[in-house]
Amino acid sequence: MPRMAEKPKKPQKLKARLPRGLEDRDPSAIRATREMVEKIRAVYELYGFEPVETPAMEYTDALGKFLPDQDRPNEGVFSFQDDDEQWISLRYDLTAPLARYVGERYGTDALVLPYRSYRVGYVFRNEKPGPGRFRQFMQFDADTVGSATPAADAEICMMAADTMEALGIARGSYVVKVNNRKVLDGVLEAIGLGGDENAGRRLTVLRAIDKLDKFSADEVRKLLGPGRWDGGEEGKGDFTKGANLSAAEADVVLAITKPREDWKEAIAAAETYLAKSEIGQAGVSELDEIAKLVTASGYGADRIKIDPSVVRGLEYYTGPVYEVELLLETKDEKGRPVRFGSVGGGGRYDGLVSRFRGEPVPATGFSIGVSRLQAALTLLGKLDTKPEFGPVVVTVFDRDRVADYQKMVASLRAAGIRAELYLGNPKNMGNQLKYADRRNSPCVIIQGSDEKARGELQIKDLIEGAKAAAAIASNQEWRESRPAQFSCSEADLVAKVREVLARHDVKWG
Amino acid sequence: MPRMAEKPKKPQKLKARLPRGLEDRDPSAIRATREMVEKIRAVYELYGFEPVETPAMEYTDALGKFLPDQDRPNEGVFSFQDDDEQWISLRYDLTAPLARYVGERYGTDALVLPYRSYRVGYVFRNEKPGPGRFRQFMQFDADTVGSATPAADAEICMMAADTMEALGIARGSYVVKVNNRKVLDGVLEAIGLGGDENAGRRLTVLRAIDKLDKFSADEVRKLLGPGRWDGGEEGKGDFTKGANLSAAEADVVLAITKPREDWKEAIAAAETYLAKSEIGQAGVSELDEIAKLVTASGYGADRIKIDPSVVRGLEYYTGPVYEVELLLETKDEKGRPVRFGSVGGGGRYDGLVSRFRGEPVPATGFSIGVSRLQAALTLLGKLDTKPEFGPVVVTVFDRDRVADYQKMVASLRAAGIRAELYLGNPKNMGNQLKYADRRNSPCVIIQGSDEKARGELQIKDLIEGAKAAAAIASNQEWRESRPAQFSCSEADLVAKVREVLARHDVKWG
Repeated sequence: MPRMAEKPKKPQKLKARLPRGLEDRDPSAIRATREMVEKIRAVYELYGFEPVETPAMEYTDALGKFLPDQDRPNEGVFSFQDDDEQWISLRYDLTAPLARYVGERYGTDALVLPYRSYRVGYVFRNEKPGPGRFRQFMQFDADTVGSATPAADAEICMMAADTMEALGIARGSYVVKVNNRKVLDGVLEAIGLGGDENAGRRLTVLRAIDKLDKFSADEVRKLLGPGRWDGGEEGKGDFTKGANLSAAEADVVLAITKPREDWKEAIAAAETYLAKSEIGQAGVSELDEIAKLVTASGYGADRIKIDPSVVRGLEYYTGPVYEVELLLETKDEKGRPVRFGSVGGGGRYDGLVSRFRGEPVPATGFSIGVSRLQAALTLLGKLDTKPEFGPVVVTVFDRDRVADYQKMVASLRAAGIRAELYLGNPKNMGNQLKYADRRNSPCVIIQGSDEKARGELQIKDLIEGAKAAAAIASNQEWRESRPAQFSCSEADLVAKVREVLARHDVKWG
Repeated sequence: MPRMAEKPKKPQKLKARLPRGLEDRDPSAIRATREMVEKIRAVYELYGFEPVETPAMEYTDALGKFLPDQDRPNEGVFSFQDDDEQWISLRYDLTAPLARYVGERYGTDALVLPYRSYRVGYVFRNEKPGPGRFRQFMQFDADTVGSATPAADAEICMMAADTMEALGIARGSYVVKVNNRKVLDGVLEAIGLGGDENAGRRLTVLRAIDKLDKFSADEVRKLLGPGRWDGGEEGKGDFTKGANLSAAEADVVLAITKPREDWKEAIAAAETYLAKSEIGQAGVSELDEIAKLVTASGYGADRIKIDPSVVRGLEYYTGPVYEVELLLETKDEKGRPVRFGSVGGGGRYDGLVSRFRGEPVPATGFSIGVSRLQAALTLLGKLDTKPEFGPVVVTVFDRDRVADYQKMVASLRAAGIRAELYLGNPKNMGNQLKYADRRNSPCVIIQGSDEKARGELQIKDLIEGAKAAAAIASNQEWRESRPAQFSCSEADLVAKVREVLARHDVKWG
């Protein structure tokens, strides 16, 4: 069928869509993020931290990932090869780029040590997206590099608590939980799980400890011991293999990681059970110092809590670890209860900068998941999501007098009043008013030829009008009363609009 | 040599460095960007534009690039394949993502038309970097979609002018130049360069016109005619091939594109010479309307100028085009004169959203190169680059009283005063003072055991101290007078620090 082949192809219409796990953000989301970021920034500045910004991409090896496989170059990170064949990746967090930044400047005049800094920005994960899990999201980090003292960790915990309160989360609705990797190492040592051959069992024990905020101690005991059936009894549901600890060993784990209101009791228990573990003792002593420092500064257990059950995922932590949890529950869009859990965390990572230096470089830091926290605050009603007022709309009544209308807009703007000319097809005044309504405009300006002849214009107060409309019974009544619309002289435009805005508490200028 | 083979490999020390064309940003650069962005945002909001944000990456086809070649997947853009084999690219501007955003929502309730929006963010170019040319830089865009009237273009030109002034660039130091692609098309038609076969010559003519801001009309005439020798006379320097226009044809081009102070003359000349070109007439009429609108709103040729010589690079412009130029010259770090030229521009791109819709969608927009403009403003001294004061530093005199010092810091912070505990090795007080100096701290707090016993502490005013130091002749005099250091009771810490800050105009809280 040669004739069909000759037929020109229809131009392909592109489909407008985003790759999975990415999102567009509307004005209220953008405004909320800006407000959150400003509040966090204010706290961090108060603590003496200074801003620093690195680009969105780094050499893949600097990020601490192995060079990507040629077949799967994007495992976990988004990567591409530069024209000199070197692999570059989008940053997946803000800590690895900071380590690179510091590594480049450590020991030079470009870096004053100890170095307190903060940064905010998007990070990228090449992972399977899910509900509330995006491939681009925002983090806000603060780190102190060059200080080995637990006072640096204590400071970050206090800053985390202050930040939560600055964001409007009441005391008692959040908690900063503190633990120490060395305490966990001590626990593992105390139950004889040191050595390479026990790596697997160590992981199983840590995973079991991590479940203490979800399961009862008895259920966790099953995970520490022979294993656990999901359904509650043998043969019911899935089976999770246990760590095969003896009852006595499980006792040690559970005694140390047991939640205690009084930090002194938590410290005492850990000290007793870890008496023979050097690393465990070091961890307990650091925990003790952090607890004393935050207590001296007036931060009680309602804000910062010693909790030896905290296990954080990242491999690189070497000492204190902390986690900020929202204690609030709320309902999601479908009315199901949602517990927020962790909205930030961090810890000491003394090995990360060292990779670039060949010498030990102490560092500790903390990251807030801004996108995640914003979702939580939105659900909690802590973020102002009601739309702002739109601009005053100057309508186009006579198509050939656009310059006059544009001039009115310019005079309003010159007075600091948010204003715009209607730029759609001016044929239908109803469409112009509908537009102003949808833009949430406080008022519209109308000037027909009659008004022009009299040197006047009409101001229609849309906020008042909406209220009046609700009280009006019939179309006829509406037409006759024309609520909330009035004339004024051209010269009074700015003054009269100001009056309307002031009446409804619309901010301008 | 088997024994050497057994020797464990030295752990490789990673080199800390950034890929070419990327930069880290320090506090003063970050602060300057924030201030610029806030000023631009305020103007755009005043004009009724609303924010919208799209992610950093899009499907490559949505960006309007051809699918990258398997061998060179990164030509111009940074691209990678998703796990479903589709190509994704980092955005190289903010217009293409906006077109995708609008294309997805056009004709639905999610988009009120005409749609005025703005966005700011980083864009990425996979190009050879050079001085001042980066592979990641910031743009700030504003666009109006769904309005075909030149009033929409006029508005953006006025907004561009207002933005320059909001950024501290005086009237007369910038100009918004306006032209229309249809006028240029008319010029080409008038000299008989329509049709596919003349595509090459058309480009040569446009390139010649683009040189009018650098070369005299006589030099451009050479480029329009037989060609031009770089060195000024035949055989000297490089030769640029000309468009081989006749003298009469070159006259037409130069008459239309000649710079004229009075926009009415520019319009009249274009009208005369393009009398027979329908598209040219359409362009002239749009230029005329824009000129009338901006003039009516009080924007003279010192701010917005009709300039038929403006050629903008991007293929997709379909009507009015505009360019913002800084008219200032300055010297670079090496004392060489630098003319800034274009810091932003845009135009009408009625075809870009249409790609997704299969129907015409009018759109016009404008982009500010924030990074480029920031570099210009920094060189011009229009950006405040003096470092802010650092935090008050509480020093550690007695190592075992860190909790006390931490508490002082907490009380200062609670009073809204930027403060921090010295977190380095406290052994040497000199180092602590040096640290405070390098942090640009206004004062430091010192409390030794003597002071503690008396319930006192020492405040050292570093700003006053630096001034006093300059006036002191000898070390001995210094030691005896201890300038700018005084005692106060522990209870007065906050009040006394406030006095020091107020004395030096350091803002807090």
